[in-house]
Amino acid sequence: MVKNTVIPYQYEAIHDRIPEAEKSFAIQNFRIAAGHESGEFQGMVFQDSDVAKWLEAVGYSLQVMPDPDLERLADEVIDLVAAAQQPDGYLNTYFTIKEPDKRWTNLAECHELYCAGHMMEAAVAYFDATGKRRLLDVMCKFADYIDSVFGKGEGQLQGYDGHQEIELALIKLYRTTVNDRYLKLSKYFIDVRGQSPNYLTEEWERRGRKTFFPEMKDFGGDYAQAHEPVRQQQQATGHAVRAVYMYTAMADIAAETGDVSLYEACKRLWDNLTGKRMYITGAIGSQAFGERFSYDYDLPNDLAYAETCASIGLIFFAERMLRLEPNSQYADVLERALYNTVLAGMSLDGKKFFYVNPLEVVPEACHHHNKQHVKAERQGWFGCACCPPNVARLLSSLGNYVYSTSEKTAFVHLYVGGEAKLKLGTYNVRLVQETDFPNDNKVAVKVFPGGEAVFSLAFRQPNWCPTMRISVNGEPLLTDGRLMNGYIMVDRLWKDGDVVELELEMPIIRMNANPLVRETIGKVALQRGPFVYCLEEADNGNLLHELLLPKEAELQAIYQSDLLGGVTIIRGLAERTSASEWNGELYKPASSETSVEAALTFIPYYAWANRACGEMTVWMREE
Amino acid sequence: MVKNTVIPYQYEAIHDRIPEAEKSFAIQNFRIAAGHESGEFQGMVFQDSDVAKWLEAVGYSLQVMPDPDLERLADEVIDLVAAAQQPDGYLNTYFTIKEPDKRWTNLAECHELYCAGHMMEAAVAYFDATGKRRLLDVMCKFADYIDSVFGKGEGQLQGYDGHQEIELALIKLYRTTVNDRYLKLSKYFIDVRGQSPNYLTEEWERRGRKTFFPEMKDFGGDYAQAHEPVRQQQQATGHAVRAVYMYTAMADIAAETGDVSLYEACKRLWDNLTGKRMYITGAIGSQAFGERFSYDYDLPNDLAYAETCASIGLIFFAERMLRLEPNSQYADVLERALYNTVLAGMSLDGKKFFYVNPLEVVPEACHHHNKQHVKAERQGWFGCACCPPNVARLLSSLGNYVYSTSEKTAFVHLYVGGEAKLKLGTYNVRLVQETDFPNDNKVAVKVFPGGEAVFSLAFRQPNWCPTMRISVNGEPLLTDGRLMNGYIMVDRLWKDGDVVELELEMPIIRMNANPLVRETIGKVALQRGPFVYCLEEADNGNLLHELLLPKEAELQAIYQSDLLGGVTIIRGLAERTSASEWNGELYKPASSETSVEAALTFIPYYAWANRACGEMTVWMREE
Repeated sequence: MVKNTVIPYQYEAIHDRIPEAEKSFAIQNFRIAAGHESGEFQGMVFQDSDVAKWLEAVGYSLQVMPDPDLERLADEVIDLVAAAQQPDGYLNTYFTIKEPDKRWTNLAECHELYCAGHMMEAAVAYFDATGKRRLLDVMCKFADYIDSVFGKGEGQLQGYDGHQEIELALIKLYRTTVNDRYLKLSKYFIDVRGQSPNYLTEEWERRGRKTFFPEMKDFGGDYAQAHEPVRQQQQATGHAVRAVYMYTAMADIAAETGDVSLYEACKRLWDNLTGKRMYITGAIGSQAFGERFSYDYDLPNDLAYAETCASIGLIFFAERMLRLEPNSQYADVLERALYNTVLAGMSLDGKKFFYVNPLEVVPEACHHHNKQHVKAERQGWFGCACCPPNVARLLSSLGNYVYSTSEKTAFVHLYVGGEAKLKLGTYNVRLVQETDFPNDNKVAVKVFPGGEAVFSLAFRQPNWCPTMRISVNGEPLLTDGRLMNGYIMVDRLWKDGDVVELELEMPIIRMNANPLVRETIGKVALQRGPFVYCLEEADNGNLLHELLLPKEAELQAIYQSDLLGGVTIIRGLAERTSASEWNGELYKPASSETSVEAALTFIPYYAWANRACGEMTVWMREE
Repeated sequence: MVKNTVIPYQYEAIHDRIPEAEKSFAIQNFRIAAGHESGEFQGMVFQDSDVAKWLEAVGYSLQVMPDPDLERLADEVIDLVAAAQQPDGYLNTYFTIKEPDKRWTNLAECHELYCAGHMMEAAVAYFDATGKRRLLDVMCKFADYIDSVFGKGEGQLQGYDGHQEIELALIKLYRTTVNDRYLKLSKYFIDVRGQSPNYLTEEWERRGRKTFFPEMKDFGGDYAQAHEPVRQQQQATGHAVRAVYMYTAMADIAAETGDVSLYEACKRLWDNLTGKRMYITGAIGSQAFGERFSYDYDLPNDLAYAETCASIGLIFFAERMLRLEPNSQYADVLERALYNTVLAGMSLDGKKFFYVNPLEVVPEACHHHNKQHVKAERQGWFGCACCPPNVARLLSSLGNYVYSTSEKTAFVHLYVGGEAKLKLGTYNVRLVQETDFPNDNKVAVKVFPGGEAVFSLAFRQPNWCPTMRISVNGEPLLTDGRLMNGYIMVDRLWKDGDVVELELEMPIIRMNANPLVRETIGKVALQRGPFVYCLEEADNGNLLHELLLPKEAELQAIYQSDLLGGVTIIRGLAERTSASEWNGELYKPASSETSVEAALTFIPYYAWANRACGEMTVWMREE
C-alpha cells in the first residue's frame, strides 16, 4: 500500500503535478539551487525535508521490494540533490537561493540541521536498500562541513537546531559509515543543548529579534527542550516530536558510549513521559498550541494534540530503550503506540491521514476554536506533510522492531509474521514467525540456528496478557520462574526446525486511568490484546456521553471478517441517560433517572473514522 | 463600598495617577481633544468609554448618596468632555485627535457609537442624580448629529456599530428627554443591522481591508450579531456582551413600539440563550476566543469565558423582558445571574474583580494556553476595565430591579430590604421590604397606598422554592389558585400599614443539567435559595475531581457568621477515589475501587476565591 499509493502520490506532490493540492515547490527549489532553472525559493523554510522523506520512504520500500523503475526515479532525484550541494558541502535550498549569507543565523526556526538530518536518514535507508553510495557521500560531505562549523573550537558556533533530528540521523550515519566523527558530532549537539547562556536566545538577539513564526514566542521556554541541559531535564516538555526525537538520540548515544548520566536522563524522561503524560492509545502531546506537552496527568481526550509523528517518535525512543535494557515495559509502550495511534493515523485504504488523534470527538465541536486542530475525518494530504511519510517509513521498516539480541539471547518483542536473521554471538540464527496476531492469539516460532546451538529465546509477555502458554516441539513448558523483566526465557540446545508455540491469553480488560487524570475519572476504556477500543456513532448513535457501562455488564468479543477489513468487535449492554423527559429545560432538580438499555458495539480504536463522520469516544462512564 | 473604593480608585486611574497600573490616558485624551494641551492620542481606540463609565457610576452613586465633593469632581470632568465636543456635536477623542477625516469609517472595530452610548448612559444617570443638564445637553447634541449622519436618507450612512450599546442608551435618552427622535434612531440601528449587503464587510472593503484587531477576522461572521437581520436570528451567537446589550435594546423597543416581530425575536433568543447556552451560575459565553457563544449545550466548566459583564447584560435583558411580560422565568434568571456570577465578579472586600467566572478551576491549568483567560484569583485592576464599573453600576442601581408595575398590579420580583415608591394607576404606593434574604427565608412587605386602594401585589415564587407561605396582617393566606406566571397574586383593599409576611421554603436541591450538556453528565450541583454552591480547596483539599457524592448522602445547611462575611455552608459526606494505591502506574485493569470517606463543605459560589488560591468546582460526580 505504501509502495503503490503513498510513494507515487508524494512523488507527484513534490513535483507540483497534483492539480488540487497546494504546491510543494520542493523539487523546484532544488532545481533552482542546482542552477538548472532560475526563480525564487518557495514553500516552507524546511521544504527540503519533503524530498528527504520521500527518498527515505523509497529506501525502506526498496529494502522490502526492489523496483527498478522507482529506483531510477530516486536516482534522478539524488542527482538533483547532489547538484544543489555547494562546493563546501552545504546543502539547503532556502539559504542557497534566498539568503546565502545568512546560513546558521536562525537555528531556532529555520530547520537547516533538521533538513540535513532527514537527508542523512534518507541516505542511509537508500544505501541499505541499494548499496549505492551517491547520496551517502553527499551527506557525509555535508556532515563533515557541519562538523567544521559547530563545536567548541575556536571560531566555531556552539549552536544546535531548534528542531532535533540531526542527532539521531548522525547516529545512523555513524553506524553505517563507522566514522566516529558523526557519533561525536551527535553527542556534541546533545551535550551543548540548553547550556547557559541560551544559544537560541542569543542568536535571536543577534539577528535583531526577527522571527519567522511570531506565535512561537508564546510556546514556552521549553518548547525546543533547550531550557536546560538535557541531563538535568526532569519532565517530558515542549514540542512532543522534538522531545522524542531528542530522547531517541540520547538513548542511542548512551548505548554507543556507555554514558550513565545520559542513560539516567533517558530513564527519567521515559518514566515521566509514559507514566504521567501518555494517552492510553500511546499518543503524546496534550496541547495543540505549540503541539506540546502540558503538565503531569493533563490528558484531555477531546483537546489532545496527539500527533501521529509524536507516537512514531515514541516508538523510536522505546526501541532504543529496549536495546539499552531489555524490559517489556518499553515494548509494551511501543506496541501500544503502534497498534493504536500510529495505525489510526492512516485510513484503512492508506489514502488519508490524521495528524491529530483525539480520544473523543464530537464533529460539531471541531468547527470551534479550541478544537480546530481536531478533525473528525482523515485528510487527503497536507501542506506540511510530516505524518504520512512517517507512517510509511515506520510501517515499511517494522521488521527492525520485532527482535533484538544480546550475546546469548534473542528477544522477541513483537508478534508479527515474518522471517529474520539474527547474529547471536557466533551463531547466525534464522527465526520464522507464523501468526495472525493480533487477530489470533497463537504464534509459532520456528528456529533455525544452522545446526545446533545453545542460547535463549526470550518471549515478551505483554502487559495485557495474564497468562502465556508455551510449548516447544509440542511439549508444554512450565513457565514458572522463567519470567525476567517481562520476558519468558526459554534456554536450550536449539536444533534446526524446532518450533515454539505460544498461546497468549487475550481477555477483554476494563482499563482505568490513574485517578490523578481528571478527564477519565469514573470512566473505563476497553482493551483486548494490544488494541484499545472505542465507541463510534456509526454503531452506537450519537450523544455517546449519555452511555454508562454497568460494572457487571457482560462483554463479548466477536470477530467480524466483513467489518472494517476484519476486526474483533466487543459487544455489551449499557444504559443511556436520555434528554427525552427534560422538556427542553436546562437545569432541574435531580430525580430518579430514567435510563434506557442500549446495545453497544466497540471497535478497535485504529479503525475509527473509516465510515460516516460521527462521534467517537475511547473512555466511557462506568457505574 | 463602590462609593468609597471603586469610584475614587477609578478616578485616579483615568487620571494616570496610579503608579503601579497601566496608564489609561483617558482624561489626557480629552484634554488634548479639548485643546487644553497638545500631544498624541494614547490608549485603546475606545478609551473614552472609561471616562463615561466612571461618570455613570458616579451618577448611580449620587442617586443613592449625595456627595458634593464627588459631584464637583464629576462636574469638572463633564466640563472637559463638553470642551472636547466638536462644533457639529461630534465627540470622540481618538478620531478628533488622530484621524479627524476618518470618522465613521471603521464602525466594526472603533467603537465610536459604543463610546457615544456609554456617555449617553452617563448623562442620563448623572441627570437623574443631580438634575444637571450639562452632559445631557452635550449628548443630545451628539445624538442629533449621529441622527443626521445615519439613516436611510439621501447621503446618510446605513451603518451601525460593531459593538452594540448605543441602541439601549438611546432608549434611556428617549425616556429621559421624551424626544422620540432617539427612539427612532435606536430602532433604525436595530432594524438595519445584518441587512444585506453586510455594511461592516463593505466598510472593510472600502477602507482597503485594514483592521485594528487582525485576530477578529477569525471570530466568526456572527461575532457582532450582524450576520443576518435581528428578527431572523434564531440563536444567541457571537460576542456575548454585544449580544445581550442588543437584545436589551430590542426588548426596550418592542415595549415602546409594540413591535411584535421584535418581541418574538426576543423570546426566541431568550429561550435559546437561557435554555441551551447558560451556565447554572447565570454565566454566558462558553468560548474565550471571541469572548463568545459557541453552540447549543456546549458549557465547559473549566474553559468558560463567562464574563461578568455578560451576566450583567443578561440581567438588563431579563429586566426588559419582565417589563414586557411579567413571568417569573425572567426574574429567576435575573436572580441566578445576580447572586452567582455578578456577585462572584467582585471580591468580598470590593477591591478585586473577575472578568472570567469559571465553574471549575485548577490553578496549575491556568498557566497553560487554553485556560490563560481563566484566573484562579481576582485581579486588582485591568487595562480594559469594563467589568468593575459595570458591577458597580449594577449593584448601586439594584433598587430598579426589585419591582415592576402594570396598571393594577405591583410585581415583587426580588426579595431585597428597602423602600420603593410605585405608581399604580392613579395611586402612589409605598412598599417597604424588611428581610435578611437570602440569608434568611422570611420577608415582610409593608404596604402604604396612601389611605386605601384596591390593587394586586404579585409575589414571585422562585423556581428554587417549592412552597411559599403568605400571611396578611398575621392571617395565613391560602395560596391555591393564586399562582399566575410564577407570581402569587394577592388582591385586596390595601390600607396603610398592611403587612404581608412571606416564608420561602429554601431546601438544599441537587441540580442536574440536561443530559445534552456533555460536561455535567453524571454530575450534580447544589443549590439553596438563589445560591449555587461550590467546593473549594480551602475546605476540601485539592484533587476535587476525585470526590463522589452518594445519592443517599445527607446534606445539612449551617449558617456560619464568621466565615466569608457570613454564609450558609452545606456539609455532607462523600467518597474520594484516591491514587494512593496506584504505585505510579498510569493505566491498569479496573479493580474494585477503594475509596475513602471525605467530609465535604460547600460554600456559595459567589464567595469562592476569597481565601487561599486553590481548586474550585461547582459540579461534582454523583453515584
